Amino acid sequence: MKRADLTEKLLDIKREKGWTWKYICETIGGHSEVLVVGAILGQMKLTKPQAAKAAELFGLSAAETAMLNEVPMRGEGLTMPPTDPLIYRFYELVMINGPAWKALIEEEFGDGIMSAIDFDMVMERLPNPKGDRVKISMSGKFLPYKYYGATGNHAEYGFKEE
Amino acid sequence: MKRADLTEKLLDIKREKGWTWKYICETIGGHSEVLVVGAILGQMKLTKPQAAKAAELFGLSAAETAMLNEVPMRGEGLTMPPTDPLIYRFYELVMINGPAWKALIEEEFGDGIMSAIDFDMVMERLPNPKGDRVKISMSGKFLPYKYYGATGNHAEYGFKEE
Amino acid sequence: MKRADLTEKLLDIKREKGWTWKYICETIGGHSEVLVVGAILGQMKLTKPQAAKAAELFGLSAAETAMLNEVPMRGEGLTMPPTDPLIYRFYELVMINGPAWKALIEEEFGDGIMSAIDFDMVMERLPNPKGDRVKISMSGKFLPYKYYGATGNHAEYGFKEE
Amino acid sequence: MKRADLTEKLLDIKREKGWTWKYICETIGGHSEVLVVGAILGQMKLTKPQAAKAAELFGLSAAETAMLNEVPMRGEGLTMPPTDPLIYRFYELVMINGPAWKALIEEEFGDGIMSAIDFDMVMERLPNPKGDRVKISMSGKFLPYKYYGATGNHAEYGFKEE
Amino acid sequence: MKRADLTEKLLDIKREKGWTWKYICETIGGHSEVLVVGAILGQMKLTKPQAAKAAELFGLSAAETAMLNEVPMRGEGLTMPPTDPLIYRFYELVMINGPAWKALIEEEFGDGIMSAIDFDMVMERLPNPKGDRVKISMSGKFLPYKYYGATGNHAEYGFKEE
Amino acid sequence: MKRADLTEKLLDIKREKGWTWKYICETIGGHSEVLVVGAILGQMKLTKPQAAKAAELFGLSAAETAMLNEVPMRGEGLTMPPTDPLIYRFYELVMINGPAWKALIEEEFGDGIMSAIDFDMVMERLPNPKGDRVKISMSGKFLPYKYYGATGNHAEYGFKEE
Amino acid sequence: MKRADLTEKLLDIKREKGWTWKYICETIGGHSEVLVVGAILGQMKLTKPQAAKAAELFGLSAAETAMLNEVPMRGEGLTMPPTDPLIYRFYELVMINGPAWKALIEEEFGDGIMSAIDFDMVMERLPNPKGDRVKISMSGKFLPYKYYGATGNHAEYGFKEE
Amino acid sequence: MKRADLTEKLLDIKREKGWTWKYICETIGGHSEVLVVGAILGQMKLTKPQAAKAAELFGLSAAETAMLNEVPMRGEGLTMPPTDPLIYRFYELVMINGPAWKALIEEEFGDGIMSAIDFDMVMERLPNPKGDRVKISMSGKFLPYKYYGATGNHAEYGFKEE
Amino acid sequence: MKRADLTEKLLDIKREKGWTWKYICETIGGHSEVLVVGAILGQMKLTKPQAAKAAELFGLSAAETAMLNEVPMRGEGLTMPPTDPLIYRFYELVMINGPAWKALIEEEFGDGIMSAIDFDMVMERLPNPKGDRVKISMSGKFLPYKYYGATGNHAEYGFKEE
Amino acid sequence: MKRADLTEKLLDIKREKGWTWKYICETIGGHSEVLVVGAILGQMKLTKPQAAKAAELFGLSAAETAMLNEVPMRGEGLTMPPTDPLIYRFYELVMINGPAWKALIEEEFGDGIMSAIDFDMVMERLPNPKGDRVKISMSGKFLPYKYYGATGNHAEYGFKEE
Repeated sequence: MKRADLTEKLLDIKREKGWTWKYICETIGGHSEVLVVGAILGQMKLTKPQAAKAAELFGLSAAETAMLNEVPMRGEGLTMPPTDPLIYRFYELVMINGPAWKALIEEEFGDGIMSAIDFDMVMERLPNPKGDRVKISMSGKFLPYKYYGATGNHAEYGFKEE
Repeated sequence: MKRADLTEKLLDIKREKGWTWKYICETIGGHSEVLVVGAILGQMKLTKPQAAKAAELFGLSAAETAMLNEVPMRGEGLTMPPTDPLIYRFYELVMINGPAWKALIEEEFGDGIMSAIDFDMVMERLPNPKGDRVKISMSGKFLPYKYYGATGNHAEYGFKEE
Repeated sequence: MKRADLTEKLLDIKREKGWTWKYICETIGGHSEVLVVGAILGQMKLTKPQAAKAAELFGLSAAETAMLNEVPMRGEGLTMPPTDPLIYRFYELVMINGPAWKALIEEEFGDGIMSAIDFDMVMERLPNPKGDRVKISMSGKFLPYKYYGATGNHAEYGFKEE
Repeated sequence: MKRADLTEKLLDIKREKGWTWKYICETIGGHSEVLVVGAILGQMKLTKPQAAKAAELFGLSAAETAMLNEVPMRGEGLTMPPTDPLIYRFYELVMINGPAWKALIEEEFGDGIMSAIDFDMVMERLPNPKGDRVKISMSGKFLPYKYYGATGNHAEYGFKEE
Repeated sequence: MKRADLTEKLLDIKREKGWTWKYICETIGGHSEVLVVGAILGQMKLTKPQAAKAAELFGLSAAETAMLNEVPMRGEGLTMPPTDPLIYRFYELVMINGPAWKALIEEEFGDGIMSAIDFDMVMERLPNPKGDRVKISMSGKFLPYKYYGATGNHAEYGFKEE
Repeated sequence: MKRADLTEKLLDIKREKGWTWKYICETIGGHSEVLVVGAILGQMKLTKPQAAKAAELFGLSAAETAMLNEVPMRGEGLTMPPTDPLIYRFYELVMINGPAWKALIEEEFGDGIMSAIDFDMVMERLPNPKGDRVKISMSGKFLPYKYYGATGNHAEYGFKEE
Repeated sequence: MKRADLTEKLLDIKREKGWTWKYICETIGGHSEVLVVGAILGQMKLTKPQAAKAAELFGLSAAETAMLNEVPMRGEGLTMPPTDPLIYRFYELVMINGPAWKALIEEEFGDGIMSAIDFDMVMERLPNPKGDRVKISMSGKFLPYKYYGATGNHAEYGFKEE
Repeated sequence: MKRADLTEKLLDIKREKGWTWKYICETIGGHSEVLVVGAILGQMKLTKPQAAKAAELFGLSAAETAMLNEVPMRGEGLTMPPTDPLIYRFYELVMINGPAWKALIEEEFGDGIMSAIDFDMVMERLPNPKGDRVKISMSGKFLPYKYYGATGNHAEYGFKEE
Repeated sequence: MKRADLTEKLLDIKREKGWTWKYICETIGGHSEVLVVGAILGQMKLTKPQAAKAAELFGLSAAETAMLNEVPMRGEGLTMPPTDPLIYRFYELVMINGPAWKALIEEEFGDGIMSAIDFDMVMERLPNPKGDRVKISMSGKFLPYKYYGATGNHAEYGFKEE
Repeated sequence: MKRADLTEKLLDIKREKGWTWKYICETIGGHSEVLVVGAILGQMKLTKPQAAKAAELFGLSAAETAMLNEVPMRGEGLTMPPTDPLIYRFYELVMINGPAWKALIEEEFGDGIMSAIDFDMVMERLPNPKGDRVKISMSGKFLPYKYYGATGNHAEYGFKEE
């Protein structure tokens, strides 16, 4: 059994039952919707209690339940650059704005990155008379580049004046 | 003169003068920093009044000033997938979370996309004792797929029950 | 069940029954032929009433009918650059004429794009003694780039003189 | 001298003089704007009389004038897939709708292609209270696949019942 | 059923029966061998009478027969650049000689292309004491680039002095 | 000096003088036009006597003349797949017809290839009331795959029954 | 049945029986081991007598035996650049030394190639106290580039002074 | 001035002076050699005091010194997959061992990554009679995936039983 | 049976039994965990005694056991660049630091590489109050480039002054 | 100064002087022609004495001489797959025969690779009445995969029965 096979099975059940993502996320609970949906789609893992609830909901075997608790090989199954227009627009944002984000974050924080791991995100609907808007707020921990020393001792300069 | 040559010239002046992006953005004014920095880096345009201020600041010729007011060939000069770790982390967010975003946005809004054009964004620093965080808030107009009819008349179904 | 499997099944039935696309589109109704054929080929969704008619026509299960009403992962299954000569010619038009289209649209409308979402299209046959012609008329909403301000307030400059 | 160098020179002059594309196209005359702009951008050729007018307008040498009358190596200088959002939207249209166009054109015309060579196109602005639209009308000659015979004699079946 | 599955079935029958391509082409008849073999391999279509003969020869179902009469998604199933040495040599000819062909055809015919659609080809064996040679003769219609005018009226300049 | 620089210089002179390829080929002489034009474009070499004539015609230095007599790094400077429509059509012919050519050549000749090295080609214009045609005749030596033996002795089976 | 399926079946039998390649090659006989192993792996063909012996050894059907006597679509199934370290080292040798080989072969032989078709190869083990070595000796026929003439008559210059 | 130009200048000076990397690193001081050499090669930044020392050593202008203190666009200038054998071997280690590293790190630490930012590394020579060895020791902070909750409150599960 | 099928079977059993990698590695024994896990995942081979223990543990057939003792086609099944964040971080380390590693290793050892074959590696957990760290120590034999002589006699210069 | 610039300069001098590679290799001496030519072309290094002779021959500066003694970034400047027919034929040999070489070397030597570093090669001309042949003999040290143990102690199994 591959993770993609399990994803396909879960989507088949969702389709047959006519469940919404909202219903699935509330039943499994515990995390944000992006994480739970991500796990169903094979990009995230569920915790053991969540996997148990998913097993009950979808009627899964022990092995399938265990697989939902495994860290998947992330990124499998999505072509890059994304061909789907909804996902491509985010890709385009990174491509067009990436250099400016880099310049501004580095001026504010020094040399480092915004973590894509210690990271959270909320998606909301903003009602708007000209057409509703999708609002996405995300925050990731800034991780300064480690400038380790010639002596083998670590020293962090990231936030200091350099 | 290519836009990349102008970018290189502007960065040389910034470096020689020791200016910060903050200083440049305040001097040029009018738009958010992401847009102004994006224009300096050759991915956005400045309005005519902004270009005039930039010309004064950097000492530009009329042709260089006009070029800053032109829409550039966006996306030029950045390798994809991004090799720079800071920019790659955003790319990874899209690759790993894209399918979940798609599922949730489509359940909430129907068939369509979040515009990458009618779109704004704010970047902030969130102080945090475990390490400061980069906060990014963005909102884009939801654009429903147009389901035009067999008669040639348009009809929007995007937000209706389907 | 993957969307590609459903597409294959629908094409098998079409082939066995000897149906034309015209017949299928008239039976399902409601939208232009490009959209209905696109949905059968797995690139578009049908509305619920359309999916019901398609289910009746093709003899589909509830889950298959539900899948036709889902937004597919668009762009799957077509290699790019297209290898098929008919599709490649359109790709070539974009590659060769894209820069001129960009120059002319931006001069006329300002900075922005022609939407590929709020978009419609009609295809017709033009009889011509030297050989009939394919006529394609399409119109997409112009979406001006949003130039949001430093204050966080939105402001649209797209159509104004800049 | 490469064609790209000539393009850069022409754009520099256009920028310095503050000319619009409309002005350039009217001065050079003879063809549609898409063709004339395409030639300035290095993707099309000008006829000899047009090249002469362009030479007068831009103050070109004999060799530069001759180069504008040469067929360029088309497609040079544009990355594919296009990174620029305006051009990408057209690319996306081909990727998402290509299979449906193929199905409908082949049902109507038989086996063949819409020529990208014997092809014309008009771009217009459609005023619209919800936001103006870009209208593009194009027509290309349908070219039936040649089904030549075992005898070495040609025979066209494209438009016949097969 | 995919076209590739049908191709595989046809090749299995050919192999079991020990048929040559020559025998298959003579039985199906009507077109040159390159077209008939191309259709069996899933790159071309057979006309209805040819498909009927193929059905009789291979013992095909109505749906399989109908599929042979469909235009396939051409180019599927061949990696590019070709890995097979026989096919690669043709690819190499295009890569090495393409620019010279372009220069010579354009000098002789003006701006345009040799059609790959209105095109025929004969392959022969040339006995030669130093080793027999493969002789390929092909002719394609020259298609001049359409230089349509600013008025919207078409005008062909391809063959005229420019 | 790179070969591409020499090509650019030669094309500049051709453009300034208003020479045709026909004139250049006749002056240099000795080989077919495809080879001579290929050498000017940097894909082929000229023999010493030809290079001497080219040197006289173009007014070249000894080093430039020597470079025309060198075998270039073939294939440099042409993007693959070709973006230029004229060259792409040949590429498409290989992609669509390659598998059929392979089947037919191998049935006729056994296991081997048509040489792209011991190869010649003539291009002609075929007058035709429906539009003139480009005729290309080429012949390449068939090279049978060498089936060398376990003993280390060579043995050719290519043309024998296998 | 695809060639890859037959390869998988043959490897399964080899594995179950515990046969070595040496044993298989001796049983099938007639050619060098590289060719016989290549045929089992789907990159070469066996002659009819060899295929008959292979059929006896592996217990193959008539269709499977016929397939071993067919020329396969060579190069299928190997990713390039090779990911396997053993194969990659050869790829690296070509990449790093290719330009030097080209320079030396062309100085010695004139313009042409070493055939990869009329080619043989022996692999041996060289005992060595510092670690045994793999010795590979190969020889390929030199094929001079054909410099055919303007008259349409062939003329070979490859080995003459040029 | 691009960072690559500065790198080229620094390497020219190093070459003319005959300096070793060891000498350069000792003179600039403060960090490990990998970081200092990385900065000279355009992949890392130097701190201000280091850049000052580098300026003195290499005789740099103020702008060049400032550039050494800037975060570069990392990853520029190295083709991937690496063509250089020394660098490729590390790439191969990741490709071949990556899945096993993932399995073992996730079993030991839970869902997360080893940081490539909060990361240090020492390279040493291990004398060995069979041939000296390169020893590389590296340690990176483990970053657990953030499993933020439905409430918008963060909660870290990374190290807990799941 | 493909190696990927065997991997999938082994992972299914591991999942059903709830075994850890640690348990599997201890049972199979003999080598480091990276090698044993690599073999289960299809990138390494097990020795015969190890394969026998694996067969007992997983209940494998003789053919499956033999396959675990075969050298696999390494690198199959992992997309490059890696999409999984954990594996990508190692890839990034190579891309960003590769040129500096090359400079330092070559200065210390001369021209050559660190072997990725005669190579070992240990992975450990470093407890750390700021967050535990992953420690990786690896050593590979330095292999000097062979500078063989004009006489055909070998001579190693790698470690000598050059 | 980049290595490619030095290569270009050396080739210019070779061309102006009319030197052969044989003459250059004899003058520089010490190594095989493949290595010396490789160094001139920027893929190998010369030893110090060789570089000194090259400096005398070509009239090089001290910095240029030092650069010839540096290890270059190998593989730069050659497109892969190779477009030049002479180099492509070697690439094709690896692609078509790679899997068979792997099978035979592993059966003979066990798990490991043939080194591309501890490697030498001789190229010769084999006179042959049917056309002279290029003979290439190469030998590379077999490097067994290191199967290091769970204890951290190394143990080589490569040549033992496994």
